Amino acid sequence: MFIKPNPKDADLTRKLRAMDHKGQSFDIPIVEERPLTIFLNNQEIVTAMTIGDYPKLLALGFLHNQGMLENLADLQAVDYDEDLATVVVRTKSKTDYEEKLKKKTQTSGCAVGTVFGDMMDALETVALPKAQIHERDMFALSRKINQMPSLYLEAGAIHGSVLCEGDEPLVYFEDVGRHNAVDKTAGWILQNRISTANKTLYTTGRLTSEMVIKTARMGIPILMSRSGFTAWGVDLAQKTGMTLIGRLRGERYMILSGYERLIRERA
Amino acid sequence: MFIKPNPKDADLTRKLRAMDHKGQSFDIPIVEERPLTIFLNNQEIVTAMTIGDYPKLLALGFLHNQGMLENLADLQAVDYDEDLATVVVRTKSKTDYEEKLKKKTQTSGCAVGTVFGDMMDALETVALPKAQIHERDMFALSRKINQMPSLYLEAGAIHGSVLCEGDEPLVYFEDVGRHNAVDKTAGWILQNRISTANKTLYTTGRLTSEMVIKTARMGIPILMSRSGFTAWGVDLAQKTGMTLIGRLRGERYMILSGYERLIRERA
Repeated sequence: MFIKPNPKDADLTRKLRAMDHKGQSFDIPIVEERPLTIFLNNQEIVTAMTIGDYPKLLALGFLHNQGMLENLADLQAVDYDEDLATVVVRTKSKTDYEEKLKKKTQTSGCAVGTVFGDMMDALETVALPKAQIHERDMFALSRKINQMPSLYLEAGAIHGSVLCEGDEPLVYFEDVGRHNAVDKTAGWILQNRISTANKTLYTTGRLTSEMVIKTARMGIPILMSRSGFTAWGVDLAQKTGMTLIGRLRGERYMILSGYERLIRERA
Repeated sequence: MFIKPNPKDADLTRKLRAMDHKGQSFDIPIVEERPLTIFLNNQEIVTAMTIGDYPKLLALGFLHNQGMLENLADLQAVDYDEDLATVVVRTKSKTDYEEKLKKKTQTSGCAVGTVFGDMMDALETVALPKAQIHERDMFALSRKINQMPSLYLEAGAIHGSVLCEGDEPLVYFEDVGRHNAVDKTAGWILQNRISTANKTLYTTGRLTSEMVIKTARMGIPILMSRSGFTAWGVDLAQKTGMTLIGRLRGERYMILSGYERLIRERA
C-alpha cells in the first residue's frame, strides 16, 4: 500500500477536554479543520476546509477535477507555504479563469463548491473503460478498509477515499470533506501517472452527483461506498456508464448502475 | 410540532431499480438532489443542491445566515419559479454584493460554500443568551427525533436539522446537505419571527466550523448532534460561548463547550 492514514500524526488531531454523560472529564482526540487557499499561477481559486495533510495533492487534484489543469506536462511547480496556508500551482501556459470563477460564483452550490456547469459539460465526452470487480474482492476491500487504523477509528467525524485494485487498497486519504479526500486521490493519480482503467474508488461518503462527476473526471469505472445514493448521482452514473455500488456493509450491498462489471460468486 | 418531515412526498424521493447482494432486483426509494438558484434582487447569489422542499425558506435562511438579509422589515417579496428552479428574494433597500461575491469566490471552500470572512467577522459581536437544557430533555429529544418518520428512515443519505424547545421538537427539516437543512430552519425562524434565546438546535451532521457559525448567526445558544466534532468547530463554540454537545446517542453524549447551560440529573 502506497499511502495509508496516519492516525498518530500530531498535526491532524488535537486533544480537547470533554465531559461525558457520566460527568467524567477527559481529553479526546478531535480532527483539525483548517483553511487552505489554492492559487493557480497568480489567481486565487478557492479556500478549502481541510485537515491539512497532503496540501499539494489536494491542490493538484482539485484543479484537475475542476478541469483547470488537464495534464502534468503543463505543470511547472507546486509550492506550499505552511505559514500562509497556501498552495500555488504554476503552469507553463498562461491561465485565466476570471470567467470560469465568475461562473463558479454564480453556479456553485453550498453542497457542491465546484464549477458545476463545466464539469457537467465535460461528462458528455467521458467514456469509462471496461473493467471487472469480483464480489469477493469488494467484500475483502470493505473489510480491510474498515479495520485499518485511521483517523476515523481514532477520532471519527472524517471521511475516507481509497483507490483500490482488485482486493488491494492502494492509497487511502482522509479529510473533513469527502470531496477533499477524493481530490487528494486525484492529485496522487496525476502526480504518479497512474492508469485508472482497472481501479475502483471506495468512499465513506454518500454517492451524490458531485462524487460521481469527480470519479468520472478521474476515469475510474467503479465507485463504491458504505453510504447511500442520491437520485442525481445514480442518473449521472448511468449516463457515464459507471458502476455504482452503495450501502456496502459486511457482505451486503446495493448496485444501481453498471451491473456488467460486477462478477457475482453466487449465480 | 409545526413542521415535520414528509417521507411520503412523491417529489422528494424516486423509486430506482436496484440489485442487492442476493441478486434480487427491486425498486428502492432514493432521495432527489436538484439545483436551486437563489437571487437577491437582480443578482444571482448561489446555486444550492437541495431535495427541493421549502425553497423560499432555504433562500431566506441562506441569505440571512450569509449576512445578506438582516431583517424582515426590508423584505418585499419572495418568488419561487419551479420550472426555472429559482427563488428571487426582493428587498426594499438596494443590494450590491458584487464585492462580497468576489470575496466568496476567493474564500469559500469546497466544504463551506459561504462568505466565510464576513461570517467570521460577524461572530465578533455575537453574545449568545443564557439558557438551560436538562439532560433528560436532551435524551427525550434524541429519542423523539430518531423515531419520527422521516426521509432518513425511509431512504437514508440525508441530513436533518431540528429546532427544539425543552423536550419538544418544533420544526424538523431534511436536506441532502446538513447546511441546507439548517438554512431552512433559519428561514422559518425569520419568517415566523421566533425568539431563539430559549431554543436548541439538533443536527444529524458533524459539528464543523460552518455549523457553529450558522447556529451563532441564528442566535441559538445550544447546538447538539449525534455526530462528532472538528477542532475548529469547538474553538468557535468556546469563543461565542455556545453549548456544544456531540455524539448524542441513547443516553450517552460528549459536551465540549458551554457546560454552564447543561443541567445534569446525576450529580
